[in-house]
Amino acid sequence: MLIDFGKIENTAIKEFKGGKNITNIRMFVDSNNKIMSGKLESDSSIGLHTHQTNSEIIYILSGKGRVLFDGEYEELTAGSCHYCPMGHSHSLINNSDSDLVFFAVVPEHNIK
Amino acid sequence: MLIDFGKIENTAIKEFKGGKNITNIRMFVDSNNKIMSGKLESDSSIGLHTHQTNSEIIYILSGKGRVLFDGEYEELTAGSCHYCPMGHSHSLINNSDSDLVFFAVVPEHNIK
Repeated sequence: MLIDFGKIENTAIKEFKGGKNITNIRMFVDSNNKIMSGKLESDSSIGLHTHQTNSEIIYILSGKGRVLFDGEYEELTAGSCHYCPMGHSHSLINNSDSDLVFFAVVPEHNIK
Repeated sequence: MLIDFGKIENTAIKEFKGGKNITNIRMFVDSNNKIMSGKLESDSSIGLHTHQTNSEIIYILSGKGRVLFDGEYEELTAGSCHYCPMGHSHSLINNSDSDLVFFAVVPEHNIK
């Protein structure tokens, strides 16, 4: 099946997961996966959170930023792939002057 | 953690899953996810296969092609996102004159 993000309403979330300013998300959800097209605005972040039953894979489409992953910063640019395995925590940060645009998947791993 | 596909060796697979010609894959694997950077060459395909315990999410980075999903064709271009939920089958086809470049995740959903 095709997921047409252009037909999924954008949600502008303020201070997502305790982060800063605005995260824009278009999200498809079923019981196994969250599949997202995201745009983190300049000087915005998704707050630090732990993936308990799932993981997250983020592919950067454009812009620059960084993740705080298990206490260390990792720099991101177009083509970067960040992986937060199950049980780990991360925060996505746009400390640049332009949008950070990404594609992300949050798969559930403990479905019986 | 960062997955640097530039540091992962490319594997050129002939007739991948019974498909046609050449699929190029750089893959990170752990027990929960396969995370891939792929390039399907012109006139190549990944053969029809079913995702029994996992799903697959494919994001098209450049090029054109199509998937055969549950018996129907879906057209792909840059920015397209194809989702094959667990229990379904698909085939990825490059019927164009240039490479089909994609990012893909195969998450496992039945880990105890």
